[in-house]
Amino acid sequence: MVPDAAQVLRFRAEQAASIPDFSTQSFRKGDSFILDFGGHRTGYLSFDLRTVGREPDAPARLKLTFGEVPPDVAEPLHPYDGKISEAWLPEEIITVDYLPQSVRMPRRYAFRYVRVDVIDTSPGFSVRFANVRAHAVTSAGPMPAPIGATPRRKRMDEVAMATLHDCMQTSFEDGPRRDQRLWVGDLRLQALANYASFRSNDLVKRCLYLFAAYCDKDGLVAACVYEKPYPRYGGMHIIDYAALFNVTLRDYVVATGDIETGRDLWPVAQRQLELLSRWISPDGLFLDPGNMWIFIDWASKLHKAAAIQGLLAFAWDATADLAARIGKDAEAGPIRARTKAMRQAGRAAYWDAARGVVTSGPDKQVSWASAAWAVLGGMLSPPEGRRAMRGALDDPQALKPFTPYLYHYVVEALVTCGEKKRAGQMLDDYWGAMLDAGADTFWEVFDPANPLSSPYGDIHVNSYCHAWSCTPSYFLRNGIL
Amino acid sequence: MVPDAAQVLRFRAEQAASIPDFSTQSFRKGDSFILDFGGHRTGYLSFDLRTVGREPDAPARLKLTFGEVPPDVAEPLHPYDGKISEAWLPEEIITVDYLPQSVRMPRRYAFRYVRVDVIDTSPGFSVRFANVRAHAVTSAGPMPAPIGATPRRKRMDEVAMATLHDCMQTSFEDGPRRDQRLWVGDLRLQALANYASFRSNDLVKRCLYLFAAYCDKDGLVAACVYEKPYPRYGGMHIIDYAALFNVTLRDYVVATGDIETGRDLWPVAQRQLELLSRWISPDGLFLDPGNMWIFIDWASKLHKAAAIQGLLAFAWDATADLAARIGKDAEAGPIRARTKAMRQAGRAAYWDAARGVVTSGPDKQVSWASAAWAVLGGMLSPPEGRRAMRGALDDPQALKPFTPYLYHYVVEALVTCGEKKRAGQMLDDYWGAMLDAGADTFWEVFDPANPLSSPYGDIHVNSYCHAWSCTPSYFLRNGIL
Repeated sequence: MVPDAAQVLRFRAEQAASIPDFSTQSFRKGDSFILDFGGHRTGYLSFDLRTVGREPDAPARLKLTFGEVPPDVAEPLHPYDGKISEAWLPEEIITVDYLPQSVRMPRRYAFRYVRVDVIDTSPGFSVRFANVRAHAVTSAGPMPAPIGATPRRKRMDEVAMATLHDCMQTSFEDGPRRDQRLWVGDLRLQALANYASFRSNDLVKRCLYLFAAYCDKDGLVAACVYEKPYPRYGGMHIIDYAALFNVTLRDYVVATGDIETGRDLWPVAQRQLELLSRWISPDGLFLDPGNMWIFIDWASKLHKAAAIQGLLAFAWDATADLAARIGKDAEAGPIRARTKAMRQAGRAAYWDAARGVVTSGPDKQVSWASAAWAVLGGMLSPPEGRRAMRGALDDPQALKPFTPYLYHYVVEALVTCGEKKRAGQMLDDYWGAMLDAGADTFWEVFDPANPLSSPYGDIHVNSYCHAWSCTPSYFLRNGIL
Repeated sequence: MVPDAAQVLRFRAEQAASIPDFSTQSFRKGDSFILDFGGHRTGYLSFDLRTVGREPDAPARLKLTFGEVPPDVAEPLHPYDGKISEAWLPEEIITVDYLPQSVRMPRRYAFRYVRVDVIDTSPGFSVRFANVRAHAVTSAGPMPAPIGATPRRKRMDEVAMATLHDCMQTSFEDGPRRDQRLWVGDLRLQALANYASFRSNDLVKRCLYLFAAYCDKDGLVAACVYEKPYPRYGGMHIIDYAALFNVTLRDYVVATGDIETGRDLWPVAQRQLELLSRWISPDGLFLDPGNMWIFIDWASKLHKAAAIQGLLAFAWDATADLAARIGKDAEAGPIRARTKAMRQAGRAAYWDAARGVVTSGPDKQVSWASAAWAVLGGMLSPPEGRRAMRGALDDPQALKPFTPYLYHYVVEALVTCGEKKRAGQMLDDYWGAMLDAGADTFWEVFDPANPLSSPYGDIHVNSYCHAWSCTPSYFLRNGIL
């Protein structure tokens, strides 16, 4: 890895040895090397550790660092001062007894690169690595041929599908590097991309049932559930994610025609509306209870009132649609009526018709998030929506998204209000910039203006294969863009 | 662990919590604790890792340090600047996914103490340890009741047998902490103690055959052999160890009456004499070829010419005895004659009759090693031997042993020349001092004048359960002392 200021991630890989050359090299105390597997893998690593020199009279102690991107293996991971657990740093120290020996690393990793530092062998021998293998795992089927009008779009679809592929395990994981966890918000976007690519629809169904099974005692769907060592309630709630459960269920019924599952889970969807209604005023305005997590995006300065209002209206509308699709027309009517009230209340509270912008909070914050969710929530007419989107996107002061997750909804909003060209441009600019930065899979967070930022205080715990960034495949493969 | 200048190893253990109290405690980033298993174990460690707080949203990363003695866990092991591999430092960093989880540490360890440092959990939860178990392994049978005329001698026998017990695995290991390897010199002493305690005679036989099978191309017995991952030649030779193979075989035949094995391995014993004879002058004096390792002891200043002369005569004599016991009387005669010549040559070269001391080298070095091996080699009459031993032991300038291995031969020499009382006193003084220092098992090296010294430059790679120190059981259980 060579420092290179021209690279977004500050390093470029240069080949130090071919595989045949590498297999003849031997390493001792203080030596290190980096292996490049040529693409992202979720899985295991094995190798044969051989010795050169006299009979090995000690174990070999090695440090292995698993990198999704060059900085993971090019820079020291310590000192670490991120906000989340240091246990997420992708490194292992192993001691291999009884050489020569076959080694299979004990955990599952997410990596393209593996850096090996030889802590020690003994003065009498060095080590050689043979049969180094990454054992990739996924529950996705074969990768379909990528689709895209330009080579860049084709590559974008390919990278997006690779991202989804490596996150599809026993559930849709948010990212294989870190949490490896099923979150509602991520699931919705993964499922949308999946319907257009791998079509592992039973995996979506499994995830919907996991959320239905492991909600809180009132029935509020959790933000995430854990699967290992046993499936269980995740203990955390995000208002938008509870609402998006309903949207995800609707999407599933639309994509699969599986009315039966829609009916089976309908009570869960109904219960979300009931529970979320506790925080919605009689005239339809969401009132932040102050003790609940509203996510929308990792952008820390985002004022979320307008966005969550739009998101809830979007979810209510999808729930009414779901009811109609599964033959619950009687229930659909009142939900539609409520959706209308929520749209009107949101419009009254957040739409500045004079300036043509959606604002949020006492400082009248303008953000892409607020505009996009106002559009998606149906708070604005299409011309108003176009105006609001342009007003936000063209305003250099407007708060931008931090995550591909929110970028998805911005693109979805542009499509919704008829700004297809601009939506396509956003794919090329935003996801394209990750391609330009060398992404094999799309990232958890990417702020083009500040590509080395992290919501966790240290980029070495960022996830660089994160499924909520896989939706270019949804837009491209469905012919939307 | 509390620093305590009154302790030989500078720390004393104080109980911080009872087991019931410990099981209610929880630990998070930066916390640490030390478990005391109450005695030395060779084996494995397992525990259940539970969580306290919210649902565990990260792995737990732990550092475990395995200590045979307090300094292993009371002091930092880094920076390490020992001469042997840093991979021997008894520490592991593990990352435990999917909590709660049962953990079984991946390697075999030698320990009484286990220090656990919590590197991180996550801000949301702490960890609790339940069902912590040491799984001890040995091929030795049940421990016989200890024997000794005084409580101190009884305890000495008990600790010596515990030492042997924890080194008896698929072979007689030198020490379970580090090399875990079969060495001839260690084997002889282990076998002697074994005949008087566990009587796992087949294990001795197995080791003799391993040495016979994996010698060099000329047939010289290796100093050590490796068993894992497959049995093989150890690649190192020690002149005294090749000679002691014959002594060990003789001891085995005496202890077991297994004449058949004696006959089967007789060609190997004969071959050692032939090969070693290359470095013995026609009149019987060993001439150091300069390119061969002579061990005798780890004392770095020891001049070894006198000692190796005595040791070789001792081995020749034992080989003649072996020949006679297995019906090879024709071969025994010439070996006896040669033994006599070697004794005379050694006596002429190293016995200073005027001063009554055995000396070695151009500086006429007086050492316990030279005196003891002169006695054991039969270079001196019993009265001369007593004089030589007293001359060395009572001379504060005389070079003392560094290892219990050489102390054994000093005691054996005292017994041989009729100084039983002094031999018993040496047990009490030397091995007794290790008992006073809190030893549960006897150590690889112990210099009473400098108990924190190491042949490797760092006491944290010393072995504190080392089988060559187990011979108090040989002396006590056979009624020799």
